[in-house]
Amino acid sequence: MNYRAPVEDILATMRHVAGLDRLIADGLTPELDGDMTQAVLDEAAKFASDVIAPLNRIGDKHGSTLKDGVVTTPPGWKEAYTAWAQAGWNALPAPEEHGGQGLPALLQSACTEMWNSAAFAFALGPLLTVGAIEALHAHGSEHLKETYLAKLVSGEWMGTMNLTEPQAGSDLNALRSKAEPVGDGTYRITGQKIFITYGEHDMTENIVHLVLARLPDAPAGTRGISLFLVPKYLVNADGSLGEHNDLRCSGIEHKLGIHASPTCSMAFGDKGGAIGWLIGEENRGLACMFTMMNNARLNVALQGVAIAERAYQQALAFAQERKQGTALDAPKGAPMSPIIVHPDIRRMLMEMRAKTQAARAIAYQVAEALDRSRREPDEAKRKAAAERTAILTPIAKAYATDIGVEVASTGIQVHGGMGFIEETGAAQHLRDARIATIYEGTNGIQAIDLVLRKLPLSGGQAVAGLIAEMRDVVGEVEAANTPGFGRTGARLRAAVDALERATQWMLATIGSDQGAVLAGATPYLKLFALAQGGTGLARKALATRADDKPTGDLATARFFAEILATEAPALELAVTEGAGAVADAAAVFAA
Amino acid sequence: MNYRAPVEDILATMRHVAGLDRLIADGLTPELDGDMTQAVLDEAAKFASDVIAPLNRIGDKHGSTLKDGVVTTPPGWKEAYTAWAQAGWNALPAPEEHGGQGLPALLQSACTEMWNSAAFAFALGPLLTVGAIEALHAHGSEHLKETYLAKLVSGEWMGTMNLTEPQAGSDLNALRSKAEPVGDGTYRITGQKIFITYGEHDMTENIVHLVLARLPDAPAGTRGISLFLVPKYLVNADGSLGEHNDLRCSGIEHKLGIHASPTCSMAFGDKGGAIGWLIGEENRGLACMFTMMNNARLNVALQGVAIAERAYQQALAFAQERKQGTALDAPKGAPMSPIIVHPDIRRMLMEMRAKTQAARAIAYQVAEALDRSRREPDEAKRKAAAERTAILTPIAKAYATDIGVEVASTGIQVHGGMGFIEETGAAQHLRDARIATIYEGTNGIQAIDLVLRKLPLSGGQAVAGLIAEMRDVVGEVEAANTPGFGRTGARLRAAVDALERATQWMLATIGSDQGAVLAGATPYLKLFALAQGGTGLARKALATRADDKPTGDLATARFFAEILATEAPALELAVTEGAGAVADAAAVFAA
Repeated sequence: MNYRAPVEDILATMRHVAGLDRLIADGLTPELDGDMTQAVLDEAAKFASDVIAPLNRIGDKHGSTLKDGVVTTPPGWKEAYTAWAQAGWNALPAPEEHGGQGLPALLQSACTEMWNSAAFAFALGPLLTVGAIEALHAHGSEHLKETYLAKLVSGEWMGTMNLTEPQAGSDLNALRSKAEPVGDGTYRITGQKIFITYGEHDMTENIVHLVLARLPDAPAGTRGISLFLVPKYLVNADGSLGEHNDLRCSGIEHKLGIHASPTCSMAFGDKGGAIGWLIGEENRGLACMFTMMNNARLNVALQGVAIAERAYQQALAFAQERKQGTALDAPKGAPMSPIIVHPDIRRMLMEMRAKTQAARAIAYQVAEALDRSRREPDEAKRKAAAERTAILTPIAKAYATDIGVEVASTGIQVHGGMGFIEETGAAQHLRDARIATIYEGTNGIQAIDLVLRKLPLSGGQAVAGLIAEMRDVVGEVEAANTPGFGRTGARLRAAVDALERATQWMLATIGSDQGAVLAGATPYLKLFALAQGGTGLARKALATRADDKPTGDLATARFFAEILATEAPALELAVTEGAGAVADAAAVFAA
Repeated sequence: MNYRAPVEDILATMRHVAGLDRLIADGLTPELDGDMTQAVLDEAAKFASDVIAPLNRIGDKHGSTLKDGVVTTPPGWKEAYTAWAQAGWNALPAPEEHGGQGLPALLQSACTEMWNSAAFAFALGPLLTVGAIEALHAHGSEHLKETYLAKLVSGEWMGTMNLTEPQAGSDLNALRSKAEPVGDGTYRITGQKIFITYGEHDMTENIVHLVLARLPDAPAGTRGISLFLVPKYLVNADGSLGEHNDLRCSGIEHKLGIHASPTCSMAFGDKGGAIGWLIGEENRGLACMFTMMNNARLNVALQGVAIAERAYQQALAFAQERKQGTALDAPKGAPMSPIIVHPDIRRMLMEMRAKTQAARAIAYQVAEALDRSRREPDEAKRKAAAERTAILTPIAKAYATDIGVEVASTGIQVHGGMGFIEETGAAQHLRDARIATIYEGTNGIQAIDLVLRKLPLSGGQAVAGLIAEMRDVVGEVEAANTPGFGRTGARLRAAVDALERATQWMLATIGSDQGAVLAGATPYLKLFALAQGGTGLARKALATRADDKPTGDLATARFFAEILATEAPALELAVTEGAGAVADAAAVFAA
């Protein structure tokens, strides 16, 4: 079945949860008003459904293939990419001085979600280009910017990120690739990289690799890593393409999902060294990477939302179509009903919907905070927004990708036996979703980042501010006296209380028992997400309800609060009293 | 990496959780003592590791293929099956009068777990044969038994179950296949069946299909369904094979997992009708199916345990091998540590282990109850054991297969990027596990069966008995005063309290609001599993602990109680106060 972008919920989430209306009212998005937002979303929705979505299954079946060093993407892939770039979508968030449209991250996020719902493996390539543009824009020399940025922004060329090596995955300390200065301002790059997404392909004329490597005599560890730009084809002074650089794709992986996205092993310097240019300062490569890390993590969060939305739509359509059994209140001898009448099927669909929209709420809130951190005229406000972005980013990344897997798996379940058949398409969503909890920092690493680096920001004031906002929402729900909310107020209050206590425990324990803090990091992140997502859905329901009529937003907020957010007290226990159980693992694994 | 059967935990679970020691002491297993049990387990473990396990990846890569009506299983498949059957493993549980060994279901269950850990898609075929043997033994005529049983028991022939049709999946009312009496005691069978596991293959000379079909003028609905035996090759009076029957495999499915298990579309009667023989009485086919349904569901539960165990072993081995980062207490500049030192990795592995062993505990308890329901001399005790089997079977099936998916998914996560690469083998476990929540009655249907048909047994006394047993275990844990239990007693008490209240609510509501009961069925089943599994692990830890030393069993029971069973109160709320949120789905899906 085809994908239809949920423009209504996307716009409602942007406006009422992420605060687009306030951004506009504050004058922070002069290039954008409500009407233009709607128009962009409608156009993106159309392109996603009409052009990209039909490629999803084709891409899965054909995959990308490697032969004699050449990677061929699936049929229609290149044409769709070219049309997409020519329509200007690649340039949406890019800086205006390099041909971009400079539109807010919030709008870009909505579009990113749509591309990824339409075809996850397709949309992944351009996400890497976004990262390359950001790194280059923030840290590249004028020469590099002039040579590469316009082509990357237009989408004529694509960018990649070359971090991982066989011995250096989550731990970049172990990185071994080398860069030797030639003396003319260039470097000779040698080394082996693995898991390089779109490391080689036939979609663009040139590919701009960003490569982490060590200079001779660089300090050990991550303080000795530098970032280099290494193009597939060298670029002549007139901008035309010159020689093929000394790099090649030495293999592509056979993966569980995202078959169309070529995951490449890259060999740099077989013939003496690929020519590269330093980005930013020597030995400061990791800092350059961190510039774009938060944004990349937001994009992966959006992939989680996207695949969940696609799986939800497919399961819903199946449940409305497939007939088995009869409704409880059907007269005897009635014909079979669509399975959506069965309470357990409804429960599954509501769970899929509630998780998806909660993840969307959190991810879009990150995007808004990112915009505010860049656009607020007041420095203190920019800093506050930056800290808000910093805290919510790992939560969005881990929660949205976790629920991406869960929702895709439940989607298979709704389909029954048909879900297990590849032709149905439900299984592909699970296979595709499964990467997003791993790459761009595993979800375990997101949780560690949250508790060790983010909670202490501004002495805990940043997280306190977020919790205070949640309390405001709870207060509004309780004051609203809207029957459709059911027990939403009480359940969310319990969740926020649990989060606050767990946060205090984390902040009090971080200095004395880091092992205990790390043992509880993952349940803590989930607890945070339940409170943040649950209040996000409630915020939307408060804004969209009318009179006393039940609405989809009310029902979704209620389901999340009453059925999902009720796990909060258990997660609090796992945080504050669970470290002993994790530590006892020693008794198990020593045996 | 290879599979090594966890014989120690299997035996401890059989003895201390499922009560093998009591079975033996009560004289109910005269053919089996403790030493012989250990000997059988050791032999099975050896066969599983040495012969079957190496086929797992081969089977996944090659799959079974269909060409010109012939299904070819992967290389080595037939030879391994033949060796397995010749070693007597197929005959283990079968009746002695037909060449079986008549060993208890509990022992058979342990072996079934091992075969499925070794290669899920391989072990699935013989499970269908077990069902065919049971149906034939219980309901077949003497002629059918004489002709088919010995060959099915020896494994020379395999059996299948032909239930599903395109329009009749979970709802067998809609079944359309026909059976016309010929007048000579045989029937002409016509119809299309789908999703027939091992419906056609090259592993045995003959295949004995059990087929549900309707007689002319049979009543509508499930009361008009009869069961027929329809062999692939007709059998001559001397037992030799005769003509090919009028049936064929018209297609095999391209599936997410269990690639080596051929999932066939079967066409019966293209040339006028396949010759079949009635099993049991006319129009009582469903009752015949139900004879074996509980046992089949137990076997699928064991598949869930099996795949979880395999995924756990693989993730554990990886975590002990793969080096990234350093331990918290490592000196500065220390070399990288195996990732198992990291608390979040330990948390994941402990969760995998605790879920797997809890599921094993529940499944083995079902097997023991099944044995008691067959072997107790006292009728009242047989009935009590049968009711216990009836209640625990859907819980075992749904919980074990749900955690099978979860554990396999977490196994991928532990592997990081390597987990997404098919060559690693971790992804196959998730793909294979994903079917078990669906077939043999979806897990939603298990939950409905539990609350509508099983809870009311003996006016609620059967379930009350199980809860009372859990309370005894909680009391023992609290009295034990063993530091390694941590807060296990308090957490399990809270879980059992929640289960008891939810059960009372279910029994009180079932007559007045079936919609509310069905809306809470799935969370209720999970709540039951947490209490049953948690007390099962505690039982084992109580039995195996020695002095004050920490043990693996104590740590596992503690982790389950403190980190997983703490969800119980939330599940209680979903049962007793969640129906409104599910009912509100109407506001969403009507829109």
